[in-house]
Amino acid sequence: MADKQKEPSPATGEFHRIAQYFRPLAKGAPGAFNLGDDAAVFAVPPGRELVVTLDTIVEGVHFIGDEAADMLARKAMRVNLSDLAAMGATPLGYFLSLSLPKRIDDSWIEAFCHGLAADQLEFDWHLMGGDSTSTPGPISIAVTALGTVPVGQALRRSGAQVGDSIYVSGGIGDGFLGLLAAQGQLPYGPEADAMLRRYRCPDPRIALGLALVGRAHAAMDVSDGLIGDLAHICEQSGVGAVLRAQSVPLSASAAELVADQPNLYLELLTGGDDYELLITGRAPDIEAAAADSGCRVTRIGEIVSGDRVVVHDADGEELTFTHVGFRHS
Amino acid sequence: MADKQKEPSPATGEFHRIAQYFRPLAKGAPGAFNLGDDAAVFAVPPGRELVVTLDTIVEGVHFIGDEAADMLARKAMRVNLSDLAAMGATPLGYFLSLSLPKRIDDSWIEAFCHGLAADQLEFDWHLMGGDSTSTPGPISIAVTALGTVPVGQALRRSGAQVGDSIYVSGGIGDGFLGLLAAQGQLPYGPEADAMLRRYRCPDPRIALGLALVGRAHAAMDVSDGLIGDLAHICEQSGVGAVLRAQSVPLSASAAELVADQPNLYLELLTGGDDYELLITGRAPDIEAAAADSGCRVTRIGEIVSGDRVVVHDADGEELTFTHVGFRHS
Repeated sequence: MADKQKEPSPATGEFHRIAQYFRPLAKGAPGAFNLGDDAAVFAVPPGRELVVTLDTIVEGVHFIGDEAADMLARKAMRVNLSDLAAMGATPLGYFLSLSLPKRIDDSWIEAFCHGLAADQLEFDWHLMGGDSTSTPGPISIAVTALGTVPVGQALRRSGAQVGDSIYVSGGIGDGFLGLLAAQGQLPYGPEADAMLRRYRCPDPRIALGLALVGRAHAAMDVSDGLIGDLAHICEQSGVGAVLRAQSVPLSASAAELVADQPNLYLELLTGGDDYELLITGRAPDIEAAAADSGCRVTRIGEIVSGDRVVVHDADGEELTFTHVGFRHS
Repeated sequence: MADKQKEPSPATGEFHRIAQYFRPLAKGAPGAFNLGDDAAVFAVPPGRELVVTLDTIVEGVHFIGDEAADMLARKAMRVNLSDLAAMGATPLGYFLSLSLPKRIDDSWIEAFCHGLAADQLEFDWHLMGGDSTSTPGPISIAVTALGTVPVGQALRRSGAQVGDSIYVSGGIGDGFLGLLAAQGQLPYGPEADAMLRRYRCPDPRIALGLALVGRAHAAMDVSDGLIGDLAHICEQSGVGAVLRAQSVPLSASAAELVADQPNLYLELLTGGDDYELLITGRAPDIEAAAADSGCRVTRIGEIVSGDRVVVHDADGEELTFTHVGFRHS
C-alpha cells in the first residue's frame, strides 16, 4: 500500500496514520504482506480462474457527501461485489485507492475502516493493497474487486438463448427512489428512509450468483436501469426480449410510493442502481438456484429472436421507451 | 467497463464516446470481453502466481495539469509498471478508472488513449476493464496493474541479508529535479527538459526485475526517495545498511546541475520519484542480472546488522538526516 502525496509537499506522517487504520484490514489476506511491499502476490486455486472488476465512486457524482463514512465504505465495496455476483464469483480480496480532501479527519477514516471491516466479515474477504492520496477535489473511492470462478463457468451477458425465461432478483426501484430520497425529492418517512438505506448500502447477490453457476445462461447486475441492462444482454447475446412491465417486482416500500405516484413506475424500469441480478435461463434451473440461495427471484419475461427489447403493459400493449423514459406507443 | 455518471444526471452518450476510444485497447486481452461484461475473467498460467498493485495519480497532487494527455496516460501506467518491476513480475494487463472533469474534450481522450496504446505495445500488455466517471474535481487516473511471477519467486522488500551489497539501477535524482523543473524552479534549458521528460514519463525497469528473479535477495522501486526507501527494506528485513552517498549515480544532466548547486545533492537522496530499482544481494548475482538485462546498476553500499541506515559522505563522515533533509552530524 503506497502512501502518496507528492505535490505540493512530499510524503508526510498523515499517511502513516492511514496505514495504521488500514493495515489491520489486510491481516489474514495471503500475499498482502501487511501492506508493506510494492504489490500483493497470491496464487489462484487450481481449477479456478480470476474475475476482476474496478469501479470508482466520486462525491457529488455517485454520492452526495452527507453520508456516514462507514456507509460510504460499504457502498464502494458493494457496487464491486455486485459485479462479482453477476459473474457467479466467490469474493477473494480487494484493492482500495482512496483520494481524500484535507477536511477529512481521523474520526472519518476510523469510521470508514469500520465499514470496510464489517463488510470484510460479511463477505469473507480482505484488503490486499492499494494507495491513499490527498486531493484538492471531492472524496473518491476506487475499489478493484477480485473473485474466482471454476474455469469456464463465469456467468456472462452473452449467453442468453431464445426461449429463456428472464428473471430478476429481489425488488426493482429502490435504487432510483433512494436517489430521489437522498435528493430530498420524496416525502420524509419510514419508506423514504428504507429506500435511502438500500441506495446507500446495496445488497450484492453473491449467494444467488454462486447458485446460478452452471444453471443460468446469462446474468448481469442492474446498475443502469432494468430495461437498459436487459438491452445489454440482448445485444451481447444477439437476441431480443419481451418484458412484462407489471411483472417487475417492487419492494413493499416502493410499491406503496408508486401507489401514490403511478407515473414513477415506468421511471423505475429505466433508472436506478438496483444492484439486483438480471438472469436468463430455463425456469426450473433459475428457480432451483433461488431456492438453494434463499434469494427471491421473479419471472418478468422471455428471450425471443430478433434484436429488440419489447415491453408490455398490463393490457398487453407495447410501451416504447426513449432516452428520457417510457411512453405509450 | 462500466460507464458511470449517476448524479446529478443519469448515464449519457458521453460515455459511449469513451467506450469507443477505450474498446480498441482491450482487443487482444483474453477475458476482457471487449469491455462488454461486468468483469474480466482470465486464468493464471500454471506454475505462476499473480502480482497486483493499484496506484492513483491526481491532478494537482502527482501532476500539475499542463501535461500532454498522452504523457499522463503513460505516467499513470508506468508508476504501476515500476511496482511490477520491483516484484520481478511480467506484466499481464491493467484496469483503468478515469475520473474526468467536464472541460475534458474528445481530443484529450483520443490523445490519452494514444499514450496508453503506445505503452501497451512497449510493455506487451492490454487494458482489461475499469470504468469512467465524471467528476466535479481534478483529473484522477487509477490503474490496477496485474503481472505474474513463478510461484514463490517474487522479489520482496523483506529478503535483505547481512553482507548483501546494495545496488541501484540507472541514475538517481532526475525525478526530484524534474519536479523542480515542472514547477519552474530550474533554469530553462536542455538539462531541465531532459529531467522533466523523465519525471513525466519514468522508465520502469521491467527487464532488470525479470533478470533479478532468483538472484536478488530484496528489491523495491524508489518512489519516496532513496534513503527512505532503503529504510523500508531494512525495516522489512530486520537489518541495517551503510550507504556511500558519493557512490550514488546521477544522470549526466543531474550531475551537471549539481555541479552548479551542490546543496541539491543531498536532497536527491531523500526526495523524488526516481522509479529506479533498489536491490540487495550478492554482487556477482546482481551484476549478472544487470548484464543480462542491459540495465546499468551501481553498487552504493552494504547491508549490515542492526536497524539503522547510516550514510557516509566522501570523507567517510556520517551524515544524519532529518525529516526535511540531510545535515552533517
